[in-house]
Amino acid sequence: MHAYRSHTCADLTAADVGKTVRLSGWVNRVRDHGGILFIDLRDHYGITQVLCDPDSAAFADVEKLRSEYCIRIDGEVKARDAALVNPKLPTGEIEVFIREIEVLGAAKELPLMVFGDQEYPEETRLKYRYLDLRREAMQTNMKLRSDVVASMRRRMWDKGFREYQTPIITASSPEGARDFLVPSRLHPGKFYALPQAPQQFKQLIMVSGYDKYFQIAPCFRDEDPRADRSPTDFYQLDLEMSFVTQQDVFDTIQPVIGGIFEEFGGGRKVDQTWEQISYKDAALWYGTDKPDLRNPIKMQVVSDHFRDSGFAIFAKLLEQDGTEIRAIPAPTGGSRKFCDRMNAFAQKEGLPGMGYIFWRDQGEGIEAAGPLAKNIGPERTEAIRQQLGLGLGDAAFFLGGKPKAFEAVAGRARTVIGDELGLTDKDRFAFAWIVDFPIYEQDTETGKIDFEHNPFSMPQGGMDALLGDPLAVRGYQYDLACNGYELVSGAIRNHKPEIMFKAFEIAGYGEDEVRKRFGGMVNAFQYGAPPHGGCAAGIDRIVMLLADASNIREVIMFPMNQRAEDLMMGAPSEPMNEQLRELRLRVLPPES
Amino acid sequence: MHAYRSHTCADLTAADVGKTVRLSGWVNRVRDHGGILFIDLRDHYGITQVLCDPDSAAFADVEKLRSEYCIRIDGEVKARDAALVNPKLPTGEIEVFIREIEVLGAAKELPLMVFGDQEYPEETRLKYRYLDLRREAMQTNMKLRSDVVASMRRRMWDKGFREYQTPIITASSPEGARDFLVPSRLHPGKFYALPQAPQQFKQLIMVSGYDKYFQIAPCFRDEDPRADRSPTDFYQLDLEMSFVTQQDVFDTIQPVIGGIFEEFGGGRKVDQTWEQISYKDAALWYGTDKPDLRNPIKMQVVSDHFRDSGFAIFAKLLEQDGTEIRAIPAPTGGSRKFCDRMNAFAQKEGLPGMGYIFWRDQGEGIEAAGPLAKNIGPERTEAIRQQLGLGLGDAAFFLGGKPKAFEAVAGRARTVIGDELGLTDKDRFAFAWIVDFPIYEQDTETGKIDFEHNPFSMPQGGMDALLGDPLAVRGYQYDLACNGYELVSGAIRNHKPEIMFKAFEIAGYGEDEVRKRFGGMVNAFQYGAPPHGGCAAGIDRIVMLLADASNIREVIMFPMNQRAEDLMMGAPSEPMNEQLRELRLRVLPPES
Repeated sequence: MHAYRSHTCADLTAADVGKTVRLSGWVNRVRDHGGILFIDLRDHYGITQVLCDPDSAAFADVEKLRSEYCIRIDGEVKARDAALVNPKLPTGEIEVFIREIEVLGAAKELPLMVFGDQEYPEETRLKYRYLDLRREAMQTNMKLRSDVVASMRRRMWDKGFREYQTPIITASSPEGARDFLVPSRLHPGKFYALPQAPQQFKQLIMVSGYDKYFQIAPCFRDEDPRADRSPTDFYQLDLEMSFVTQQDVFDTIQPVIGGIFEEFGGGRKVDQTWEQISYKDAALWYGTDKPDLRNPIKMQVVSDHFRDSGFAIFAKLLEQDGTEIRAIPAPTGGSRKFCDRMNAFAQKEGLPGMGYIFWRDQGEGIEAAGPLAKNIGPERTEAIRQQLGLGLGDAAFFLGGKPKAFEAVAGRARTVIGDELGLTDKDRFAFAWIVDFPIYEQDTETGKIDFEHNPFSMPQGGMDALLGDPLAVRGYQYDLACNGYELVSGAIRNHKPEIMFKAFEIAGYGEDEVRKRFGGMVNAFQYGAPPHGGCAAGIDRIVMLLADASNIREVIMFPMNQRAEDLMMGAPSEPMNEQLRELRLRVLPPES
Repeated sequence: MHAYRSHTCADLTAADVGKTVRLSGWVNRVRDHGGILFIDLRDHYGITQVLCDPDSAAFADVEKLRSEYCIRIDGEVKARDAALVNPKLPTGEIEVFIREIEVLGAAKELPLMVFGDQEYPEETRLKYRYLDLRREAMQTNMKLRSDVVASMRRRMWDKGFREYQTPIITASSPEGARDFLVPSRLHPGKFYALPQAPQQFKQLIMVSGYDKYFQIAPCFRDEDPRADRSPTDFYQLDLEMSFVTQQDVFDTIQPVIGGIFEEFGGGRKVDQTWEQISYKDAALWYGTDKPDLRNPIKMQVVSDHFRDSGFAIFAKLLEQDGTEIRAIPAPTGGSRKFCDRMNAFAQKEGLPGMGYIFWRDQGEGIEAAGPLAKNIGPERTEAIRQQLGLGLGDAAFFLGGKPKAFEAVAGRARTVIGDELGLTDKDRFAFAWIVDFPIYEQDTETGKIDFEHNPFSMPQGGMDALLGDPLAVRGYQYDLACNGYELVSGAIRNHKPEIMFKAFEIAGYGEDEVRKRFGGMVNAFQYGAPPHGGCAAGIDRIVMLLADASNIREVIMFPMNQRAEDLMMGAPSEPMNEQLRELRLRVLPPES
């Protein structure tokens, strides 16, 4: 017989009754039923009930077992009494009578119980991660993550992509976040950087003629921690293709991402058609470029109904350039209590409040209520109701001003309204491509033009577009929104050196600066660069959504804590003097 | 029609004659045949001949093309004259008459030709890696690497392994090489380290109950560069299993590695049975723990034939403790010229020389020649010949002393002899497991006992073995040798804290020191650790062997140069002052 097991703890069924077997695993729990000790023996695959009565030679040893001892047992498989069969366990028809036992690894008293649902502070869970990871929920999440990544790879291979590994210890790749630096020992005083993304390398791979690249790529950003972001390293499904248009990239990645959600979504609905929404429309309709489309609420411009109306605040606002009034329709939200609560929400978010109208029936048919309705009168109120397609029992909220100033709050109000009214279908993965991102944005205070997103995107209209109003230039640049998260981001790249230099010039970067920052890529573009584009999908976030987890640390095996520390392994830690000497570095004292 | 291509450059055959097609790719070369311009248009998939005659409207543009322009052409597929069909090209039956052309990316004068076999200095190749990577040999190598890694994953999944990603920014993991450090911004003065291997994490994954782990794992060692080693990051197929013996690990990995060599070996023979050779025997027979078994030469101990013999040097040597005389048989090496050359080789390697005997026929039957034969006389010479199984036309070389002092040179001599005599079968992948490594070695000068290999291996015999002579303790520790390289290294781990502390104590490390260095793992072992073991296979080296490359940089997409620099991307480079300030670091001036 094998030294440790003839079967796993998920294998034995009624067909094995009478066999002598060997099992290894962990003591999930021990119960004493009238002197007989029952142990749920657990391994990665399942649980088998093993037991020992006082007559057994092994009894004295079994008695000493405690939770999470790792043991090996030999024993005989017996059928359970019909009344004791556990249909929830694959091994529920049998139990194993222990003949011999060996402790493979003893366990001290546990700081965290593996069995059961007790909650523990995150610091405890991370410090004893090896115990936390034994818990059923974590086993499920980790297997899910592994299976999702494997499925991604299979799907990419099936589409003719090859995975190529790009360097990890490399040059700084300015992408908006901070680099992690790695001091060089062979070149003291010089530093490598860990890549924020393999952006330049994947573009170089296209210039090198590899046509279709993907990588489950580790990315490194020295960012302040957030619930949905790892403070150190994280993984992307990164891909790039040559000789493609934006639509080709969509057609490539949609079946991959959509397929993953179908495969691992646990039966939740997955959108089959992914709408393309312009950045501008997304801002108007949803107040964000990562809308949650499970929520059916779509905001609308209703300025005309308030122009020169009796509601002086809005009427006055509209006299200023660039202002608008927008409505958030709230079907079924037609009560004063709800409307007041939403108004309070807007105030908490820093706005003066949200005007509202709601439609009720006081016995005389539909009636518009709320202060706004009174101010603008029944005709305008009714026109608004009709535009928004609302009826009895519904409400609408109104925000006014320069859209930039209230758009984000409007978006959050839309989310809260959808949630509170139960309009948002929690049982669905809703996808949309957000397209036509502006290349540039203008700092409202300094008036300075800078890149809105990623400086490597091809402007729609090419060089001609760059010669006009920069703020009107849109890029072949896109995000995939799913349930309020940005899951994918990408672009058709700017592969023409002259257009690239011009694009940077508009943002105030001279040719020298561009060559210094992106020299590797810019040089490469001078030697026959193909048109290319691609995208990157955040793996942690995808798994988070699939696992229905609210925290990225639930889907990462060994995450850092929120202070970017690993308390289990002791990172970061003080280096040895010799290490610093070799690197020719000195740590300065804190400024006092 | 698609914006860039209706077909790839490998697609068109006689079946497409008459079609109007669109192709994109690079100008591999241009030839002018009597005024007609022929272009080999190349993409990732193949080459298609396209042509343009002076009557075409596109001619003026085609005339301006130079090598490595990236272009898009529209044209008509025509059959080639039977005499002009190129059977070596999949597209060799057709050619495409250019109707329209668009330059997608122009190319400056090339520092490195893509077409043809011209050799370039490595610095040129790395600086213009995007051109170098377009060359046929590099395309083949990179595709091979990608396909090998994909096949590894498929094979591991098929064996029930899941891939789990371990942290890259983490704690120092002392494994014998230098760590790369990463200064922490949130904790100035403290440093993360990049893992030399995921050793501790994979063991923690076993303690966490995941049973079977693998990872194509990036590893980081700050080492001085070598031809078969990357100076920064490299990849391993890393795996670990719970509840297994050494043989289980062999049975798991052999079909994976063997299968890869079958699949990608290009028809070269792959050993089906992998012998297990003890570390001690490998040293004796082959002078190394990574023998090249394509070479049939096996060294033998021949001390007895020289004891009290007329060859005073060896006879005297043998009077000292721990000395031996070993023979390297050299079938077909029986000429004075060859023997003298090998003797000179040994001298160049720092030995006084290698004695030899060779067997010739001067017309009177077999005769032993060489100075040694004369000194020890015909009887002993003949006994040696019989022990070594040699005959007419063969030779044998002799080395004496303490084995440690000459073993390595003997091993190299064996390699040279095998190569020079054409005994080594170059058309084969020869595998053997080297097993039973000693846990400890003794420093010959200081007498200090230290770990020979990896401190995490389980000693054969467990705690009992550690209570005896440390130098006699062997570990469940193994390497896989292939054609003179170490391809895989692994062990059954020491998962019992008390045995681990004892093992470290023997090497002079107190419990505090062990807890400080390997605290994460040692703590984990106190909570029910399962027996476990595994191994890691060097991917770069495997691909090198399959690609028949002599340099690791031929199988890495963007390697560092030998000074650990990336001249294309400019790494390492000087950091910005602000970065250093955030990290609270100062670079010290070089010591004068």
